[in-house]
Amino acid sequence: MSNNYNDMWRSLGVNLEAHDQLLQALPPTYHDVYLTQTNRPKSMEYFDFVVNEIHGLRIQELQEHKKNGGKVIGAFCVFVPEEIVRAAGGICIGLCSGIDIGAAEAEQVLPRSICPLIKSFMGFKLAKVCPYFESCDMVVGETTCDGKKKAFEILNDYVPVHVMETPQMKKSRDKQLWLEEVQDFAELAQKTTGTEITDVSLAQAIQEVNGKRQALRRLSNLRKNNPVPISGKDSLLIEQIAMYDDVARFTAKVNELCDELEQKISTGAGVFPGRTPRVIVTGTPMAIPNWKVPHIIETSGAVIVAEEMCTGLRYFENEVAEADGLDSMLENIAARYLGINCAVFTPNTGRLEQLENLVRDYHADGVIHCTLSFCDPYAVEANRVEKMMKQKEIPFLKIETGYDQEDAGQLKTRVEAFIEMLR
Amino acid sequence: MSNNYNDMWRSLGVNLEAHDQLLQALPPTYHDVYLTQTNRPKSMEYFDFVVNEIHGLRIQELQEHKKNGGKVIGAFCVFVPEEIVRAAGGICIGLCSGIDIGAAEAEQVLPRSICPLIKSFMGFKLAKVCPYFESCDMVVGETTCDGKKKAFEILNDYVPVHVMETPQMKKSRDKQLWLEEVQDFAELAQKTTGTEITDVSLAQAIQEVNGKRQALRRLSNLRKNNPVPISGKDSLLIEQIAMYDDVARFTAKVNELCDELEQKISTGAGVFPGRTPRVIVTGTPMAIPNWKVPHIIETSGAVIVAEEMCTGLRYFENEVAEADGLDSMLENIAARYLGINCAVFTPNTGRLEQLENLVRDYHADGVIHCTLSFCDPYAVEANRVEKMMKQKEIPFLKIETGYDQEDAGQLKTRVEAFIEMLR
Repeated sequence: MSNNYNDMWRSLGVNLEAHDQLLQALPPTYHDVYLTQTNRPKSMEYFDFVVNEIHGLRIQELQEHKKNGGKVIGAFCVFVPEEIVRAAGGICIGLCSGIDIGAAEAEQVLPRSICPLIKSFMGFKLAKVCPYFESCDMVVGETTCDGKKKAFEILNDYVPVHVMETPQMKKSRDKQLWLEEVQDFAELAQKTTGTEITDVSLAQAIQEVNGKRQALRRLSNLRKNNPVPISGKDSLLIEQIAMYDDVARFTAKVNELCDELEQKISTGAGVFPGRTPRVIVTGTPMAIPNWKVPHIIETSGAVIVAEEMCTGLRYFENEVAEADGLDSMLENIAARYLGINCAVFTPNTGRLEQLENLVRDYHADGVIHCTLSFCDPYAVEANRVEKMMKQKEIPFLKIETGYDQEDAGQLKTRVEAFIEMLR
Repeated sequence: MSNNYNDMWRSLGVNLEAHDQLLQALPPTYHDVYLTQTNRPKSMEYFDFVVNEIHGLRIQELQEHKKNGGKVIGAFCVFVPEEIVRAAGGICIGLCSGIDIGAAEAEQVLPRSICPLIKSFMGFKLAKVCPYFESCDMVVGETTCDGKKKAFEILNDYVPVHVMETPQMKKSRDKQLWLEEVQDFAELAQKTTGTEITDVSLAQAIQEVNGKRQALRRLSNLRKNNPVPISGKDSLLIEQIAMYDDVARFTAKVNELCDELEQKISTGAGVFPGRTPRVIVTGTPMAIPNWKVPHIIETSGAVIVAEEMCTGLRYFENEVAEADGLDSMLENIAARYLGINCAVFTPNTGRLEQLENLVRDYHADGVIHCTLSFCDPYAVEANRVEKMMKQKEIPFLKIETGYDQEDAGQLKTRVEAFIEMLR
């Protein structure tokens, strides 16, 4: 990335020294993980470019938006309704939390033994190394896990945080509570942006975000083919970029990629040989630039065909039903988001059913359950997944890991042994 | 405890061998922690007796109750309304989870890095070493933390579990949701026991449980005196026994103890010299027989004057307002329980205000924040407490520990240094 952005970063209050270190670390990792892949679709060029410009062009766009009076709203979770932010004229950004950064600062306010994603976002904020974070007029949190829920109270010391209460079950009273949370958020979004949400703007935002989800679903469906037309790593990258890129451009680029992949499929071409073991990864989100486990899997002889994760299917598998009238649209938004199979819910049987269907639909040979260290919701729910996998006789591997590379060798050994079993 | 209970334990399906090991471990610990104290009130004899008979007489009472058609309902949290269980003719038992037991069995189904309280209750169940657990017709869980919430799904494989959804905030919609949860629980309790809850039975249960809380508050208030008439360890023990002893008998015995303490206070007598530093302990519950940190504190030159914990003030500081009519009573029950300052709530400012008041009212010289390992709600909220303590210039120490004794020496050094500072 060009250093021409230094002035912009400085004006945002970014700690340039720490930020430089971050930016220097990214390209070699990206090269090793991404650019060494073979048979990559040509249309991945756009996404490579986006990563290359990760703190540059897109930040510039956000600044342009802000200069014109627009607001930027950050989020850490797929429960925050992007449609509402957009309808109120704002830009919704999924904030980075996929790298071990600012840990020393974060541990001043957080316990040591906490999920690395939480430590990461707190570190990004306290060390002032994320220009996205520094561009946010408000951050929207949720109550999907204890660690985030309580960490948002601390984060609120440094940036205004609004917390949406995600219920813990899916009973009718939970639906009512969540609907009211969504309605409140619509109020707040309007107050924050100073722009009224109208029938027209909300309908358009729903269509746009549905369009993004449709493109991602189209891409996902193409991965059911054998040989697979795109690697799991590339797919994950796209799912990560979905969280912060411009919606219309991103949607168009994903569709362009899909056109290319369809072409590829029609000629029988793929990125891995047809007999490569096919794996579904499920568990906690992999926030950019956390590519650790997918890289291990795809350099150990398997290909990932689907991510049953928040950076994956949970983000795009359901759409908001279109409707007339603000009230109905907000109801449909609430319903769509409460359909997410998040481990916050007890029970979360929808996830088990979904996983079983995915194994069948994506012709998967096995499932790898991957949780971030200290993530109780998914680490405990892993037992339910494991139990179901045993019943259905689906090969299953359970991994718990953080953002450091210390256990990479050990993980690779375990993953290789698992993949060997799938052949 | 006499081995005459062997037949009873066997009939409950208790693993006698493992259970024997547990029972052999308890008396020496109890001797060291409790019976070596000086100036103990004579009325502690009853509570010593209860501990001595922990798996004997009380279990026999539960079996008698069951023989007469009664039901036993277990709980792990002060959010489960005992009044409702009692009004339906059941006995509500707070289940033990304060000792590292059955860890090997628990780790078969739970992650290693999880709160020891959760590992403990799962271990108790899977290793079949708790006759209280084995006496339960149903267990009532709640959604106060991720670990428990998800572990209840697993526990339900081994014993019927009903989960009450505790909301994450205290807005009016949360109050409504919780009220409905309480109403549902009243339905379920009646179905489980086969006994209808009436105006009369619920009013009586409310009075009885209020009576228990009043006795505990009376005891608590006496600890405001200087010198303190009772040790923190003894007080904690009573607060732990409150969870499973017979309500009427327990209430009477606590009041007898208070009579004795008032006598003592009138003569200026106490358990520690008048200039002993006074400490408030706050944080996660200390389930019986977890006396680790209080023992360290009170053998390091300080006395604990209050427990701002679930095994402590959170359990008895508020009463259910009496009312006429079932609906009003259930509303008052819901309101009382939602008043608990649990870290499940975001924000949980009530706890901070309460702590500040306690320091003043109990003439405390400092506060020790004690969380179980991997307990995100309290470990993260500790930052809020610490911030407030700094603002108010109240000496503050933060501890994170489990059930093992490995860190006892290191903790003692830290606690001693802290207490030295208070002199």
